Amino acid sequence: MTQLAPPTTSPETTGTARTAAAATAPATIDVAWLGEYLLGAWAEERKHSRELIKRPELHRIDGLGMADHRERVLGQLGLLVDWGVVHRAFPKSVGGEDNHGGNIASFEELVLADASLQIKSGVQWGLFGAAVMHLGTEKHHTGLLPDIMSLKVPGAFAMTETGHGSDVAAVGTTATYDEATGEFVIHTPFRAAWKDYLGNAALHGTAAVVFAQLITKGVNHGVHAFYVPIRDENGFLPGVGGEDDGIKGGLNGIDNGRLHFDQVRIPRDNLLNRYGDVAEDGTYSSVIGSPGRRFFTMLGTLVQGRVSLDGSAVVASKLALTIAITYATQRRQFTAASDDEVVLLDYQRHQRRLLPRLAQTYAMSFAHETFLNAFDGVFSGAHDTDADRQDLETIAAALKPLSTWAALDILQESRESCGGAGFLAQNRFTQLRADLDIYTTFEGDNNVLLQLVAKRLLGDYAAKFKNADAATLARYVAGSVGATAVSRSGLRQLSQSIVDFGSTARSVGYVRDEASQRQLLTDRVQSMVAALAGRLRAASKLGPVAAADLFNANQDELIEAARAHGELLQWESFTAALESMPAATRQVMTWVRDLFGLGLIEKHAAWYLINGRLSAHRAQAITDYIDDRLLPRLRPHALDLVNAFGFEPEHLRAEIASGAEQARQDEAAVYYADLRASGNAPVEEKALKAKKR
Amino acid sequence: MTQLAPPTTSPETTGTARTAAAATAPATIDVAWLGEYLLGAWAEERKHSRELIKRPELHRIDGLGMADHRERVLGQLGLLVDWGVVHRAFPKSVGGEDNHGGNIASFEELVLADASLQIKSGVQWGLFGAAVMHLGTEKHHTGLLPDIMSLKVPGAFAMTETGHGSDVAAVGTTATYDEATGEFVIHTPFRAAWKDYLGNAALHGTAAVVFAQLITKGVNHGVHAFYVPIRDENGFLPGVGGEDDGIKGGLNGIDNGRLHFDQVRIPRDNLLNRYGDVAEDGTYSSVIGSPGRRFFTMLGTLVQGRVSLDGSAVVASKLALTIAITYATQRRQFTAASDDEVVLLDYQRHQRRLLPRLAQTYAMSFAHETFLNAFDGVFSGAHDTDADRQDLETIAAALKPLSTWAALDILQESRESCGGAGFLAQNRFTQLRADLDIYTTFEGDNNVLLQLVAKRLLGDYAAKFKNADAATLARYVAGSVGATAVSRSGLRQLSQSIVDFGSTARSVGYVRDEASQRQLLTDRVQSMVAALAGRLRAASKLGPVAAADLFNANQDELIEAARAHGELLQWESFTAALESMPAATRQVMTWVRDLFGLGLIEKHAAWYLINGRLSAHRAQAITDYIDDRLLPRLRPHALDLVNAFGFEPEHLRAEIASGAEQARQDEAAVYYADLRASGNAPVEEKALKAKKR
Repeated sequence: MTQLAPPTTSPETTGTARTAAAATAPATIDVAWLGEYLLGAWAEERKHSRELIKRPELHRIDGLGMADHRERVLGQLGLLVDWGVVHRAFPKSVGGEDNHGGNIASFEELVLADASLQIKSGVQWGLFGAAVMHLGTEKHHTGLLPDIMSLKVPGAFAMTETGHGSDVAAVGTTATYDEATGEFVIHTPFRAAWKDYLGNAALHGTAAVVFAQLITKGVNHGVHAFYVPIRDENGFLPGVGGEDDGIKGGLNGIDNGRLHFDQVRIPRDNLLNRYGDVAEDGTYSSVIGSPGRRFFTMLGTLVQGRVSLDGSAVVASKLALTIAITYATQRRQFTAASDDEVVLLDYQRHQRRLLPRLAQTYAMSFAHETFLNAFDGVFSGAHDTDADRQDLETIAAALKPLSTWAALDILQESRESCGGAGFLAQNRFTQLRADLDIYTTFEGDNNVLLQLVAKRLLGDYAAKFKNADAATLARYVAGSVGATAVSRSGLRQLSQSIVDFGSTARSVGYVRDEASQRQLLTDRVQSMVAALAGRLRAASKLGPVAAADLFNANQDELIEAARAHGELLQWESFTAALESMPAATRQVMTWVRDLFGLGLIEKHAAWYLINGRLSAHRAQAITDYIDDRLLPRLRPHALDLVNAFGFEPEHLRAEIASGAEQARQDEAAVYYADLRASGNAPVEEKALKAKKR
Repeated sequence: MTQLAPPTTSPETTGTARTAAAATAPATIDVAWLGEYLLGAWAEERKHSRELIKRPELHRIDGLGMADHRERVLGQLGLLVDWGVVHRAFPKSVGGEDNHGGNIASFEELVLADASLQIKSGVQWGLFGAAVMHLGTEKHHTGLLPDIMSLKVPGAFAMTETGHGSDVAAVGTTATYDEATGEFVIHTPFRAAWKDYLGNAALHGTAAVVFAQLITKGVNHGVHAFYVPIRDENGFLPGVGGEDDGIKGGLNGIDNGRLHFDQVRIPRDNLLNRYGDVAEDGTYSSVIGSPGRRFFTMLGTLVQGRVSLDGSAVVASKLALTIAITYATQRRQFTAASDDEVVLLDYQRHQRRLLPRLAQTYAMSFAHETFLNAFDGVFSGAHDTDADRQDLETIAAALKPLSTWAALDILQESRESCGGAGFLAQNRFTQLRADLDIYTTFEGDNNVLLQLVAKRLLGDYAAKFKNADAATLARYVAGSVGATAVSRSGLRQLSQSIVDFGSTARSVGYVRDEASQRQLLTDRVQSMVAALAGRLRAASKLGPVAAADLFNANQDELIEAARAHGELLQWESFTAALESMPAATRQVMTWVRDLFGLGLIEKHAAWYLINGRLSAHRAQAITDYIDDRLLPRLRPHALDLVNAFGFEPEHLRAEIASGAEQARQDEAAVYYADLRASGNAPVEEKALKAKKR
């Protein structure tokens, strides 16, 4: 855990950081304790995965061509099978462990090896295999899962089409039941209905789970999943065709491609029939009566993709900040008060660039742990009511967008903070950023997901206030309703009544404390939702065009409300995580939490000011508090905070985080010291001129 | 110009956009006129460059390995030589045209072909060649430039070292004059002093302009440039060594690498001696007495790198938005009020994502034209005073950061707005983004550049108020000083006195007009600078450590003030550009300018609220005005606005902007219409259930 750690505060540290270090000496982080704590409920699975990731045969090789990269990653999947680490999530009946949380935890770490390896595993076992597991029944488990688990059958998850990504319910592919033969006929009626962007489709897949409109007896029962063989050793099977998606912005170790079907016949048994079935005579039946609910239930079983992308974004952010902050504590540039050059992280701007993002990463990490526990609760059956599933989906839709966007931002700021060195592939940022780019739009487009969250918040609000009068609504907005209006999706109700933040002259101490942060963050979500609900109420009295226009005219704010909700979830998780920390660690981590919470309030200061929740004086005080107190206080702990992420050199694999920069600085310093001591150092022209005067 | 243009408002346009279109029918853009206007003062050079760029041999090939890509780009440079388009900036005496603006304009367009081609040309002729031209004298021009221009001598620009990027004055490489032999000895004293990240250094360069500390007679005269042969057909010359930088985040068609020198001897004549010379006996002389001013004068001659990166960022942003907005007007997803799916750009969120970035791109484009004219003025000698050069450098330091950051943001938002299709290399975004990433930190790190701007603003402020009392300062902050305090660097002084924006109840009409936008934007820059000056005043009374700490404690705000200044420059350029537009075009373009200006004010609303420049009511009104008026108004003109950028299919080279998406939509629509007409369409289960009830 300490292999990379120079002393927490180097003796050369100048200026602000030195002052702050003196003021805050007692607070220290127990790095080993925090590191273990961060690994969470499935620490063993994570550690095991990190041990495997040390093996060079799993590491990404920069500059490998697409074809070689694809073959390498396929081979890596084979290694994972050989090492027996892909079975965790599958049923015990077929040799699995029914360990859903542990499976995702170990999977998330794979991003440290190569994001292509991670996502190709995700395609094979998390999408293709998971669809068979969750949407299929016993016959599919027994008949299909063993070959999927062993990689004997690599497969594609054929949901998205060129023409329909976010709106899966509208895919064009059809699966029409033919009573005469007892077969489904899979068909692609037009170009936009080609399945697209599918991992394993361009080269390696021999089967696919195909999502298609199930039509029997002249009725379309909506989208269902079908197991369809697509290739054998001679290439595509009759009626199946496709294309290679070619080079992508990243993840080029995965063979994404397109598939289309020309009246391809499959046995009736190939319908994955857990939620909908067709009898031999063509009669449709389902355990879920409502077609809409059935569709969302089927999709809901695939939430693990969003869980794991959220967790992977956290891991990648931790890696980026470990590299950037390690470098920032060794790299020097420009002199200020003395002849010694200043360490980058002693510059206020550099702190402003990296430390709030470090706080955000901690918040994301704690929120992800909450999320992963909720996921495991549902899929282990421990907490698996309809409400639990809906809550899980809402958490997923709120957190995955925030963390995947944040990861790109953190990777980019980290890269820029290392200058030209940050641009070299050998220092990891650029390749990881290229790979993670797509995380923002796959497994649910981030904007579309946030809109789902907003609809949920509005729905909860409407359910609560179905028959409420204006006065009740006003009281709710003012925060005086004590109930759990939107709490199911994780929103904690305020216990205090809202006070007028703007009217008093109390110091920043007021907004700094935990209760005030909670109040400000919670109030913003509630008020935005209430205001939107008020505006959208009129929709019920409008015609469909006008109602759609009204909704659309509020779309941007809906999405912002959902974002605020997600930020609150992160803040609450961080705050809850503080409780069990040892005192000295908790002290520092509370500053980190404050930097996150006050950073959110600062980011949304305009809202707080416009809505009278903060006075101008207090809004300014928050910025000053961050700049003058929190950043200098946290500066001496920055290395401990990244070292707690627990990466070893085989995970970092970045030259600038290897100690090489410190060695170069030391060598140069010795050279100049020796030169001065020798008496042979040239005189500076400037100094000479000053002397002459 | 119109080859890609479907009708401005498609008949299917629904909802908001339809309403807005009806309301604003009279305002139309003269696309041909605007397109020509955007090409600016060097339209012919740009057009010529764009014609060349149509040739497939200049186009980037995605997925080419690094080695092949480097060879291809070297070959492309040879084509540019053959076609006679690299000579423009060089002196007429050696066959050039002394056409500085035209050279940069044509160069900027090259990003459309391949950014590697652009930057490798920039290394060869804009850095290596330009250093010989601007820092050398007649003997160097005659002796060296012809082979540089013809690419007979590919060369590296060896300024940056592994240990010093932003702080060039502190490079470690030495050039010590040996009176005995009349030679300079070029030497790398330690690892951190290796030259690094140099294009042409890994493979192709046979010479380099090396920046080193000039030492003669025991005095270090600071950094000077030396022409140093480094390779012949057998590889590195004796004493020279190096390394390949390997794979980078982008620009992999360029052979970046490292160089180091072990007591390498070069003739005295190889000192590029325009600003500093050494006589045979070792006596140093310079036309510029102050070593500091001499250094900055030398660096200042190389400002063209920043000019061209600013322009390239504009071209890339235009390309990205042309692709994303074209797609957004054809792509449909989800239904709202009818069975027809909604066109993406009719969603408010999609408008919010793309249209403000389109406005920003126009602002960047007009600001760049101002910048390019200033550059040409200085380098043509038409406006070449010290003040002109300082202004040019300040404009460069303000605009290059804003536009290069914006380009990354615009490329990313464009990519995400196209979903999975946006991630495919064939649709351009991801590869361009990878290449342009480094534009934010090379040719001056963006944060460091903005700090230079802030220092200039503070310097101008201090010069103006050297002996001012507190009352005068207060009047200045209140805007009642009519003079040109900081106007040299482009800041326009307010002619109106500041009114209390917060105290009246006038409508959004107030902040909407041009004068109010100017006042708000200008006031912010002035007030931030004045406040910083006030706080930093104390530094003169402090010791060096405390003074450095004080400066550092304000660093973040200094950089924000510089950013505000850059944004104002963009806004002023946009506003000035409106003047000569035909009325109908000007009407639409004024909305675009308003979207840019009000967008800036919205972004900084917290500052305006905290500092009492906007009331809460007005701040909210600005957001509402953008959402409810400007976006719907501009929606019908979005395609015209990107078509005015004038790209042809050979420039776009993006499948999703080729009309393919429209063809797919049409085909699917026809399929469903035919199916309905045939009477064979399956019934929806949901519809069936509704009927039964």
